[in-house]
Amino acid sequence: MTTRKIIMDCDPGHDDAIAIILAAARPELEILAITTVSGNAEIEKTTMNALKVCDLVSRPDVVVSKGASEPLIRIRETAPGIHGDSGLDGPELPEPSRSWSGEHGADTIIRLVKESKEPVTILPTGPLTNIALALTKAPEIKDNIEEIVLMGGGTFGNWTPTAEFNIWADPEAAKKVFDSGLPIVVMGLDITHQALATKEVIDQVNQIDNNVAKIVGELLVFFASTYKEMFDFDGAPVHDVLTVAYCVAPELFKTKDVNVTVETKGEFTAGTTLVDLHGVTGREVNAKFGLELDVEGFWKLMIEALKKY
Amino acid sequence: MTTRKIIMDCDPGHDDAIAIILAAARPELEILAITTVSGNAEIEKTTMNALKVCDLVSRPDVVVSKGASEPLIRIRETAPGIHGDSGLDGPELPEPSRSWSGEHGADTIIRLVKESKEPVTILPTGPLTNIALALTKAPEIKDNIEEIVLMGGGTFGNWTPTAEFNIWADPEAAKKVFDSGLPIVVMGLDITHQALATKEVIDQVNQIDNNVAKIVGELLVFFASTYKEMFDFDGAPVHDVLTVAYCVAPELFKTKDVNVTVETKGEFTAGTTLVDLHGVTGREVNAKFGLELDVEGFWKLMIEALKKY
Amino acid sequence: MTTRKIIMDCDPGHDDAIAIILAAARPELEILAITTVSGNAEIEKTTMNALKVCDLVSRPDVVVSKGASEPLIRIRETAPGIHGDSGLDGPELPEPSRSWSGEHGADTIIRLVKESKEPVTILPTGPLTNIALALTKAPEIKDNIEEIVLMGGGTFGNWTPTAEFNIWADPEAAKKVFDSGLPIVVMGLDITHQALATKEVIDQVNQIDNNVAKIVGELLVFFASTYKEMFDFDGAPVHDVLTVAYCVAPELFKTKDVNVTVETKGEFTAGTTLVDLHGVTGREVNAKFGLELDVEGFWKLMIEALKKY
Amino acid sequence: MTTRKIIMDCDPGHDDAIAIILAAARPELEILAITTVSGNAEIEKTTMNALKVCDLVSRPDVVVSKGASEPLIRIRETAPGIHGDSGLDGPELPEPSRSWSGEHGADTIIRLVKESKEPVTILPTGPLTNIALALTKAPEIKDNIEEIVLMGGGTFGNWTPTAEFNIWADPEAAKKVFDSGLPIVVMGLDITHQALATKEVIDQVNQIDNNVAKIVGELLVFFASTYKEMFDFDGAPVHDVLTVAYCVAPELFKTKDVNVTVETKGEFTAGTTLVDLHGVTGREVNAKFGLELDVEGFWKLMIEALKKY
Repeated sequence: MTTRKIIMDCDPGHDDAIAIILAAARPELEILAITTVSGNAEIEKTTMNALKVCDLVSRPDVVVSKGASEPLIRIRETAPGIHGDSGLDGPELPEPSRSWSGEHGADTIIRLVKESKEPVTILPTGPLTNIALALTKAPEIKDNIEEIVLMGGGTFGNWTPTAEFNIWADPEAAKKVFDSGLPIVVMGLDITHQALATKEVIDQVNQIDNNVAKIVGELLVFFASTYKEMFDFDGAPVHDVLTVAYCVAPELFKTKDVNVTVETKGEFTAGTTLVDLHGVTGREVNAKFGLELDVEGFWKLMIEALKKY
Repeated sequence: MTTRKIIMDCDPGHDDAIAIILAAARPELEILAITTVSGNAEIEKTTMNALKVCDLVSRPDVVVSKGASEPLIRIRETAPGIHGDSGLDGPELPEPSRSWSGEHGADTIIRLVKESKEPVTILPTGPLTNIALALTKAPEIKDNIEEIVLMGGGTFGNWTPTAEFNIWADPEAAKKVFDSGLPIVVMGLDITHQALATKEVIDQVNQIDNNVAKIVGELLVFFASTYKEMFDFDGAPVHDVLTVAYCVAPELFKTKDVNVTVETKGEFTAGTTLVDLHGVTGREVNAKFGLELDVEGFWKLMIEALKKY
Repeated sequence: MTTRKIIMDCDPGHDDAIAIILAAARPELEILAITTVSGNAEIEKTTMNALKVCDLVSRPDVVVSKGASEPLIRIRETAPGIHGDSGLDGPELPEPSRSWSGEHGADTIIRLVKESKEPVTILPTGPLTNIALALTKAPEIKDNIEEIVLMGGGTFGNWTPTAEFNIWADPEAAKKVFDSGLPIVVMGLDITHQALATKEVIDQVNQIDNNVAKIVGELLVFFASTYKEMFDFDGAPVHDVLTVAYCVAPELFKTKDVNVTVETKGEFTAGTTLVDLHGVTGREVNAKFGLELDVEGFWKLMIEALKKY
Repeated sequence: MTTRKIIMDCDPGHDDAIAIILAAARPELEILAITTVSGNAEIEKTTMNALKVCDLVSRPDVVVSKGASEPLIRIRETAPGIHGDSGLDGPELPEPSRSWSGEHGADTIIRLVKESKEPVTILPTGPLTNIALALTKAPEIKDNIEEIVLMGGGTFGNWTPTAEFNIWADPEAAKKVFDSGLPIVVMGLDITHQALATKEVIDQVNQIDNNVAKIVGELLVFFASTYKEMFDFDGAPVHDVLTVAYCVAPELFKTKDVNVTVETKGEFTAGTTLVDLHGVTGREVNAKFGLELDVEGFWKLMIEALKKY
């Protein structure tokens, strides 16, 4: 079986953590590295969380590189109201067994993409600062990137009325990525809001008798509580997990080929993604945009993965 | 019975025309004037269409004033792909029995609002140029405006991925109106797309045996054909009619008190309305935003109005 | 002798007042009207000041129309630090002998331009709100406007590092004017800062034995004091007067044909004029930009005018 | 004698080359590295030119690191009309004796600043991409940067009416630097246009009998020819050289402590620096802005340096 080589660029974060857990369980994926970024929480915290999750899934071998501690040009903002003060509030995870690699996340991306014999897929699930840095420092890596499957954006927003957090937190970096010419798959709010970890889902998770599932259950309970409070949602949408699910089971996703452009200049709209669903802009297709999720299939995939631990 | 005094500021336009037809049929509304604006078509055409519709509903007494022929500062754009070359393609309407008033639409608004003993409600269903001109020339009229019930904006767009045509066509004018401090009711795409003139609706209209209903049927058939072609809709949304329906039957509408802000500066987002449904911006409530329409009740209202002719 | 028909659109304002005084003294100019705008001070004050200045120069016949009390879309800002609380601090002028016309300034511009047998020159020396309103309401007046000779803009700013007050106060209006296709002469800070009312100039004025000169002397003393305080200038630049001087003695002015564009969207630069002196933008020439003033000739013109009173 | 440790971040470029030549001649300066950036020419060319200039001044020991080949998010633009196709047209320089370091310019900056026992001064004379990358990757280096002495910006522009080339080419990077909180000295067009290499200057250079002076003479002749053609200047302003001159002889420079802000969002003004000379913005001082050069002293410094070769 050929495996798909992936780099997970993330800011764990509850859903990032679950994305790693899903990826580590799937034999089709080879995780070349986890690179961290400031986003859901500050960089020290997201890096710590990534290391803890590697231990949780018994993968202390995966390279973890700390990346950007702030956006390209904007002031750093984090989301403690959603992810708690640690960025991963809820379960108690042991201190990590090791430290991070010592190489900057953007440099790890550059190095691994260059070294890889097969094209690499990058899964950004936080602000796109590391990817933008890597593309600016070494534009030649584009030749060996298969696809960027990212969580971000949508036809509506959560952090502002029109902007989603990951894109809003570093719009200039996002613009760099969307303008790069690389094949991009966008898991935006339109589709990630379909992946709600409802009470029924959490019950299913809790029936699985292993430590990873237990932790995932605790993550989902905390995540649901903040989503209830801030957005009055019944269950938390596990946004970032969709990027991994897409890589292993694209048949669960209905997407549309569209142009996606990022606003960086507006007075109120910086970080807004313009998703041209009806082809009204005349701009060229540069992305596959996630429209519809096979919700049942998605959770089945997740539950099966958890059972393997 | 007390009547509500209204000024219809419009760019007929199929749905504007039907809005006038509904308003003229309702005893609760006193149409002080119809003021026209460039939008769906050029100002000469929208003014001509307004005069024709007045004749159609036997109201040659209603003041019709031609307003702005171009936006405040942008280049004029019209929508012939939606409304045909005349702005009201489909039925054949006789030449109007009279000319327009000779007073600029913005001045008619200023004069009538000042003259009226009771507060006036304004129903803008095109770009907001006339309203912005009136508010800039005579800000004191705000004291005698009851409400602005407008069609425009939404949480998504039709003319760009994030902007609706009326707001997009003159964002600066829209900003003026939304920043005015006046009570505003927004019938945006979120709710107007619920008012689809489907085949079933058109059948009902066609069963009514009078000339007005016959014309409305023809308008809807044409309008549906362009919406099918451009947006692949099954039936045309009669956007503008909702402003009139709201004035006579607000109980058909579920709205939410929110802040609505207009972007004028973005590279790609000018004309986007930011509808703060979840209160994430901290900006003050300045509008009632239409969320849900009692679709059956709405069409019942419309059909009954048509039967009166 | 043929006279040049002018409309002075202004916000007196010390230099506006002196501009009126110069214009009223020159037989080559026929002042069709003075229209006022909010700018240096609120509209009630600038209108009052215009009426007082008409009395001062014994021209109670000149139409004075009150115009816009606020910019097209921005918040109104005035400049009391420069012109004092009244907008014309310094001399004591008697209450005006009459009231303003009752017609909005923008409408007076529209009416007079349409009525005039010869093309009219407009001299805006405040924010361009009235001109923008007139052009939006009645774009057809462009056919009978000879030229717009305005004070505003420059290659540097005074109200921000890059924006001059008149353009900054209503950038959208300014954009409308510069994009109108009309012939425009720009008296910007580059040239108006050459027209400094120094101590020597004030001495010359004070040697003239009539009431108008006495008042002008008092205006200049006050104006110089605020310019000293705010900008550390030795003498106040009588910006607005240059528009009138240009109409009667263009030979005193070295100008360059350039493109001038107005920024309306920047985060820090709204109201900045981009004066393309070196032709680097590729945009078409739309203005004559004032570069160099024959300073001696200018003050000679002014002194002679004052002696006539 | 204590030496000042400097990193020259540049895009040679005629004036960059002369800046290196001046720096290499001065015992007060220790050149830790030359890092290159895309700007006057593409990165391969500016890197090649930096290596050639090192050989010319017999300094093959200086680290030369190739940096960013494109701006953070904008499309790359170069200036062949000013610097010729090679970026250093005019003299014939031999192929370099070695290759560049293999380390990215931004990483060289980070490494050397971290390694240095004394604070390092950085002299950027091209677009600020490398500095922005370094600050984003390793914000902690700010603690060991003494000062950033850069060429860029001004109260007027050369590439647009309000923007200077270096800032315009990567406004986002410039914003990062100006917002960094680091001490910044700005050699903008206001002062660099005072350093004109006139015919007299070139004559003086040509009287010096060594190869370096001969090459500098040829550089100045070519540079003057393009400045004549594009801007009608009598002599080329040797912009970048002022950063080096400031480090060795600050007494030649009159500067003012001001706030400098970079516009990134305007429709026409991106890359404009807002230099708050009169303190009108209320923003805090973040830069020393060069106002006046002791022109004679400057050229004396340059001529003496050339004589040492």
